[in-house]
Amino acid sequence: MRIVVLAGGIGGARFLLGVRAYAREVGAEVTAVVNVGDDLLLHGLRVCPDLDSVMYTLGGGADPERGWGRVGESWTVKEELAAYGAEPTWFGLGDRDVATHLVRTTMLNAGYPLSAVTEALATRWQPGVRLLPATDDRLETHAVVEVDGARRAMHFQEWWIRYRAGLPTDRFVFVGADAAKPAPGVLDALGSADLVLIAPSNPVVSVAPILAVPGLREAVAGTPAPVVGVSPVIGGAPVRGMADRCLAVVGTECSAAGVGGLYGGRSDGGLLDGWLVDTTDAGTTVADVTVRAVPLWMTDTDATVAMVRAAVELAGSGRAA
Amino acid sequence: MRIVVLAGGIGGARFLLGVRAYAREVGAEVTAVVNVGDDLLLHGLRVCPDLDSVMYTLGGGADPERGWGRVGESWTVKEELAAYGAEPTWFGLGDRDVATHLVRTTMLNAGYPLSAVTEALATRWQPGVRLLPATDDRLETHAVVEVDGARRAMHFQEWWIRYRAGLPTDRFVFVGADAAKPAPGVLDALGSADLVLIAPSNPVVSVAPILAVPGLREAVAGTPAPVVGVSPVIGGAPVRGMADRCLAVVGTECSAAGVGGLYGGRSDGGLLDGWLVDTTDAGTTVADVTVRAVPLWMTDTDATVAMVRAAVELAGSGRAA
Repeated sequence: MRIVVLAGGIGGARFLLGVRAYAREVGAEVTAVVNVGDDLLLHGLRVCPDLDSVMYTLGGGADPERGWGRVGESWTVKEELAAYGAEPTWFGLGDRDVATHLVRTTMLNAGYPLSAVTEALATRWQPGVRLLPATDDRLETHAVVEVDGARRAMHFQEWWIRYRAGLPTDRFVFVGADAAKPAPGVLDALGSADLVLIAPSNPVVSVAPILAVPGLREAVAGTPAPVVGVSPVIGGAPVRGMADRCLAVVGTECSAAGVGGLYGGRSDGGLLDGWLVDTTDAGTTVADVTVRAVPLWMTDTDATVAMVRAAVELAGSGRAA
Repeated sequence: MRIVVLAGGIGGARFLLGVRAYAREVGAEVTAVVNVGDDLLLHGLRVCPDLDSVMYTLGGGADPERGWGRVGESWTVKEELAAYGAEPTWFGLGDRDVATHLVRTTMLNAGYPLSAVTEALATRWQPGVRLLPATDDRLETHAVVEVDGARRAMHFQEWWIRYRAGLPTDRFVFVGADAAKPAPGVLDALGSADLVLIAPSNPVVSVAPILAVPGLREAVAGTPAPVVGVSPVIGGAPVRGMADRCLAVVGTECSAAGVGGLYGGRSDGGLLDGWLVDTTDAGTTVADVTVRAVPLWMTDTDATVAMVRAAVELAGSGRAA
């Protein structure tokens, strides 16, 4: 059995812990196609927040309290950069994390594509799932904001972290998406999958940038495998983060039904065969999509495995049955 | 009064502490022309060991015990790089130090020359002397070694740190020197100096790479100011480091007389008007050079100021008098 998961950062990483545990039980192979829209260049270093969240979490090196970055992290480099007055200062660049970015940046500058670099970094972390960036090309999520009367595109991370998603924006753009190609292995994985899962990640700024890579949305829509999504919204509020603000930007209600409708039913030109919502949201309907309600709080790996099992069952009960 | 000092790393930095203190007493301006032959690219970062030793030491941020690097340094990034198997592992890249290299590398990649970057970094450290790299161009000291029967050039830092100067070499080469130009300000400083001092740095791999920049040796030899050198060898042994091994490579005796002769007398086509040796080496002679013996152990700033005062007096007693 081959499972492909479209995933963002922290929520995607936690979901993948459950997918990996389930896959070990049943002897399945897992490929994670991870968002790169949050990637940015900081002090000359290529930082891939989502790939690293997934890698660190699956590799046992993530900080479970903070949710992002490395456990036991220190901040000497960041403090020193600030002492030099080096901008930006709003990004949490930890010392341990810096080493990852140094290795990555050195390899990228030597000509290796991000997918090869990710594979090389993973030899240390042994995440137990195949990690693929959505694309090896530059694809950056920007928020279009108005600052001092002038409209400009601001990197999503600056909008999200520095301004706490508080600057009015009316849209997100995926810079470079037009010219991006799916990373090697992504289309093959989707084409030969037995199940495609959309992790409970931010649909607007984690999953949408993955789907913005030309050919990638079509590959999900066209895969012979069933596609099941997991709602990142429970009872009208995002499980984590400020997804409500992102949903508002694209005019989507912050609800399990809203996000399900955003992805859309496959027979209707959308992506989903099945949509998993929390029991709080039982009764949710999405046109042409089989909806099932189960507990969606990823409190521990067992709870997450139960979600994955429910997604697999939902897949089996629908179109793929 | 304008004083120009040719300096390497640790010895040069300690000497400059004395020059700065002397200059403050008499109201002089100090320009340090610093070796860049030790500079190297590590994990994508441009590291300038000598410029940093001088900057940290004069800025009060150097580790006084270790002699190099930052006081209160931590080694998280280095340990993490090793965990990734990233080479090389033999260089002591501390966390605080990494921030300096990140700022420098980012500015260099943005197109600023090393001299401008050095000035920018110095706005934090306020070294109290003007720091100039000998050149903005790439000039790297390599040792020519034989490894497994094949001759090859090895970066000086690898030869020095990794192999503890223990690999047989028959010469040093200054890669890039032919095409290098003195950094902006260097020739002007030498041309308008009232005194030029050669710090008690390694003559073969700290001072020689400075002089290897085309036009720089000529500017020292041709300056209207007196030129006084301070011996880095006391009683036949280098004050610090493994200068004896470097001197052996160029066939020079490890003695105050040997190094003085290597620089040579100015009227004889060399550089020196005066040569300061330690009292242990009283009686040393160098052809066409006025030699004076005073205590040369830089045990503290007062002792070093006394050395500088002796150098100034020696300058006044000779050709410039």
